[in-house]
Amino acid sequence: MRLSQINLRLQRESPKYETSINASLLIKGGFIEKLTAGVYNYSPLGLKVIRKIENIIREEMNNVGGRELLLAALHPRQNWEITGRWKNFNALFKTKSRYDQWYGLGPTHEEIIVPFAKKIIQSYKDLPLYLYQIQTKFRDEARPKSGLLRTKEFLMKDLYSFHESENDLDDYYEKVKDAYSKIFSRLELPFVIAEASGGTFSPYSHEFQVKIRTGEDTLYLCSSCSFCQNEEIISDKKKCLNCRRNLEKIKGSEVGNIFKLKTKYSEPFNLKFIDSKGKEKIVFMGCYGIGVSRLMGVIVEVYHDDDGIIWPKEAAPFNYHLLALKSGKSNEDKIIQSQAEKIYQEFNKKGVSIVFDDRKEFTNGEKLIDSDFLGMPQRIIISQRTLEKDSLEIKERKTKKIKIIKIKSFLQQ
Amino acid sequence: MRLSQINLRLQRESPKYETSINASLLIKGGFIEKLTAGVYNYSPLGLKVIRKIENIIREEMNNVGGRELLLAALHPRQNWEITGRWKNFNALFKTKSRYDQWYGLGPTHEEIIVPFAKKIIQSYKDLPLYLYQIQTKFRDEARPKSGLLRTKEFLMKDLYSFHESENDLDDYYEKVKDAYSKIFSRLELPFVIAEASGGTFSPYSHEFQVKIRTGEDTLYLCSSCSFCQNEEIISDKKKCLNCRRNLEKIKGSEVGNIFKLKTKYSEPFNLKFIDSKGKEKIVFMGCYGIGVSRLMGVIVEVYHDDDGIIWPKEAAPFNYHLLALKSGKSNEDKIIQSQAEKIYQEFNKKGVSIVFDDRKEFTNGEKLIDSDFLGMPQRIIISQRTLEKDSLEIKERKTKKIKIIKIKSFLQQ
Repeated sequence: MRLSQINLRLQRESPKYETSINASLLIKGGFIEKLTAGVYNYSPLGLKVIRKIENIIREEMNNVGGRELLLAALHPRQNWEITGRWKNFNALFKTKSRYDQWYGLGPTHEEIIVPFAKKIIQSYKDLPLYLYQIQTKFRDEARPKSGLLRTKEFLMKDLYSFHESENDLDDYYEKVKDAYSKIFSRLELPFVIAEASGGTFSPYSHEFQVKIRTGEDTLYLCSSCSFCQNEEIISDKKKCLNCRRNLEKIKGSEVGNIFKLKTKYSEPFNLKFIDSKGKEKIVFMGCYGIGVSRLMGVIVEVYHDDDGIIWPKEAAPFNYHLLALKSGKSNEDKIIQSQAEKIYQEFNKKGVSIVFDDRKEFTNGEKLIDSDFLGMPQRIIISQRTLEKDSLEIKERKTKKIKIIKIKSFLQQ
Repeated sequence: MRLSQINLRLQRESPKYETSINASLLIKGGFIEKLTAGVYNYSPLGLKVIRKIENIIREEMNNVGGRELLLAALHPRQNWEITGRWKNFNALFKTKSRYDQWYGLGPTHEEIIVPFAKKIIQSYKDLPLYLYQIQTKFRDEARPKSGLLRTKEFLMKDLYSFHESENDLDDYYEKVKDAYSKIFSRLELPFVIAEASGGTFSPYSHEFQVKIRTGEDTLYLCSSCSFCQNEEIISDKKKCLNCRRNLEKIKGSEVGNIFKLKTKYSEPFNLKFIDSKGKEKIVFMGCYGIGVSRLMGVIVEVYHDDDGIIWPKEAAPFNYHLLALKSGKSNEDKIIQSQAEKIYQEFNKKGVSIVFDDRKEFTNGEKLIDSDFLGMPQRIIISQRTLEKDSLEIKERKTKKIKIIKIKSFLQQ
């Protein structure tokens, strides 16, 4: 794609109204725009990042048998009355139609997926069942001030699993734990798996926490083994429950959580099945969330430097950022431009993900600054200097390593 | 995909609570589920249809230079106050946060895209600009009773165009009209382009109306030329304004509309640009909508028979529906099953879109009925009878034409 066609307007200044690193960099780079406190718009460039993250999640969810569906965002009040959360879920946005019906705006979907699953599940032959969606959620959060880390409207992947027995739930829970580890590893995030409060029905849940200084959660991580607990459940003793070593206090941002719901929601909705002996039994459930738009923010919190964003390869909107530097002599510039155009065309033909800075009104210096700021993993420069050696320059954004490669051999890759 | 993995439960009876043909068939087939009046959930199978329709629209929008983005659904009250629609847009759902801010739930996005575009557009060099999204919209409709044709929550594609001049808007408007014609042609829908009310700023807008008996709109269509007008603007005379022939009264369901907004929204938000002579000018706008989930309903209204749904090829969740009919003799059934499995595997390898009815508990008769009902374009049967001739049977769902083809030559296709 040509940079001019993405229609973003890079800003030279960081937005003064934005205190978080992630939103500040993402707004400056034209990835997102702040509509109001806790509500953001995604530009074409920002949506590319979101789609990349979504597709990683989708692949790994499909790998553990997940089936993607799409549930409604307008939830009838009655469904939430059944679980008692119409009153107890503080962050639930509510809206009344002019015909006097009340709806909640889906902040999570247990109240919707359980009655849905009830129409599918009748016997043990229908189990296990794994359903997920990637969807906009709404939560009336207090004082959103961490950019994409805490918003009133956000993209979330929510998976729900339905099982014959607690054993089967336990097995699948471990599978999803592995799938989540794969997802966050593909995004190159430094994460820990922390024990957290399990609510009424389970002793613990697990949170996938990315270690960042600006994280909203406080965690205690063992300096020796990988044991980690959220502050909310930690004992006073400050010693690892696993190996008795000292615990280190760190900050984290939760990007995923997995939860054994057991029968917490199947009971109020009476979600039962007939087992192989003809006996009616209650269904066991798990739920598993990932904050898709929050991940975009967390990635930026982890991966940036003074020059801008450094996208991990699998989240980058484009792998290559192509620049044709002007020499100032019009005959040379013509050749530089046509060589860059040729490389751009060849890469497009091969399906390589590349963005070409074709903006005419910008200087070499501005283009170099912008390419660092936008943070694609590899920058390619074509200039008079490189062309004299029939070469191009490739710089890795992360390591700043530069290589000079013959154009011919580069195109044959 | 294996039919058992889609986890749909086909119902033998039509849902009694559903009066519309489209929702009745789609619920019976397990494509959608009704959550409450005017609100539906999409099952994995139904979501496949939605994604097929979305991708057709996406392709054609990209072909006319559209750039996809994603705007927020929570709209600050202030944006809607500026255009006067906070009070005047009757179907606007409103919600108040517990921190006393009011939001509208996006029923359309002029109030959001114009301030967004204002941050991009400064000079004539930034124009034209074409931005679109595919997103869940909310409208507090009265008495939703037409299934997916009129709902309180729906998927919509909305494109907004920004221009230097009215002439440029006029040119692009025609391009989008052509793109829309391509989209509805690819979906094999019998549509007419009807003139409709243009609101304050334009004499007419254009609606893409699909001719269906159950349509909510009344149209007058010339029996000779293609002239068509919505009842709301028709003169009393009942003669074609174009060729003076008689007008025929028909029913239609609106699947798309295109609208020259001109300066209706750029003025209240003061969306201006500097032209090539350095003069400040107002931006001209167009907006162009397509009801994505409504299209799914309209397709079913048009394409069904007594046996069930008949998906047009480009909207079908799968192109082929594969059945292995039991002979009743276990040694024969083993061979039938393994041949079907082989064809299924080969097709998957080739990336052909196929669903294999692997449900063990169903009879041949039930499987045949279900395959007609689910409505994939081509049904493939492997049975003792076809295997005796090293063949398989292909039936086209639409024409009911049957062909017997050698398995070997079929797999070499």
